Amino acid sequence: MLKLYYSPGACAMASHIALEEAGADYETVRIDLKAGEQKTPEYLAINPAGVTPALVTDEGVLTENLVIMGYVAQTHPEAKLADNGSSFNFGRMQSFNGFLGASLHPAVSRALFARPPLEGEARAAALEAALAKYRLVEDALFKGPWVMGDDYTMADGYLSVFTRWGRQAGFLDPARFPTLNDHLDRMQVRPAVQRVLAAEGLSAV
Amino acid sequence: MLKLYYSPGACAMASHIALEEAGADYETVRIDLKAGEQKTPEYLAINPAGVTPALVTDEGVLTENLVIMGYVAQTHPEAKLADNGSSFNFGRMQSFNGFLGASLHPAVSRALFARPPLEGEARAAALEAALAKYRLVEDALFKGPWVMGDDYTMADGYLSVFTRWGRQAGFLDPARFPTLNDHLDRMQVRPAVQRVLAAEGLSAV
Repeated sequence: MLKLYYSPGACAMASHIALEEAGADYETVRIDLKAGEQKTPEYLAINPAGVTPALVTDEGVLTENLVIMGYVAQTHPEAKLADNGSSFNFGRMQSFNGFLGASLHPAVSRALFARPPLEGEARAAALEAALAKYRLVEDALFKGPWVMGDDYTMADGYLSVFTRWGRQAGFLDPARFPTLNDHLDRMQVRPAVQRVLAAEGLSAV
Repeated sequence: MLKLYYSPGACAMASHIALEEAGADYETVRIDLKAGEQKTPEYLAINPAGVTPALVTDEGVLTENLVIMGYVAQTHPEAKLADNGSSFNFGRMQSFNGFLGASLHPAVSRALFARPPLEGEARAAALEAALAKYRLVEDALFKGPWVMGDDYTMADGYLSVFTRWGRQAGFLDPARFPTLNDHLDRMQVRPAVQRVLAAEGLSAV
């Protein structure tokens, strides 16, 4: 059986939503990031990088949200969470997910979670950089009604983690980011997302 | 025909090596990052994120090195640059590539390329963070003799871009990083890599 290591509300929620949307047979293991559980010898044996998510499969361990989402899409084709039949369409979805993982996520993390917290000009610059990434999704990358166009894909679940963070931080004024706010509202009423929120002990925002 | 937008010596070299190793039919367009060519309206129409690489295909544009490498591997199966037949093995390679793109690359960029350059404690902390990422590859993620084990894969080309940067910056003492140094030496004598270096106007380091 698949086993997902995740931390509540952290970016691994994307992989959690992916498994739930796919109807996968899986279990979860909670990792408390604030308690440093991602750096224990037990967890480092699973993911030497010491971050979540990690997905343990019968063949071994996969890491990185976009990789886990791609694997779940390919091994659960009946759920139609990606266009598995087209290398280009699959890649286009992963290009978006790659932008989230390698560009938006680090920018938002730096603005929200830097330790020690940023102050003054450094904080203002980090907020501006993070907002520019959300702006790019709002204005250019989001096709509508779902991220990739007509069909819900893995990219929708991944985006919703970061728009959740943005709304919680007060970043995403509905007047300035109507598309992202509408998308998050539609995500939070999906049964799979509601099951993930409940499992992680979280509420809609 | 495929068209790769790249900047010499930048991370897009990974996609360039991928195309050359695959024997792909492609052309290249050079983007001068220092001159800001990645922010021109013409280039933003290709990649709204304003970064390289971008690969223009007959079906549209793909971005992010690991996505381009995955696409090239899947559309050139005869080159055997990934295990296309196994979702798990393909994902395992992409997990490594995702670590490079979302974790090692930002850490090394911050240490080497921050503008304005970091100084004092901030610089020391950034150098330490970058070295920790190289250390993780050296000690835990690299299987040998190639990154993923017995077979050369896309992951080897991608890693070599960052070990090239590290050697140029004096980060990678051969006594402390023997595996990474040996790998870079073996990469630089591959005919495909030598063709990429020549095409980008660069030399081995």
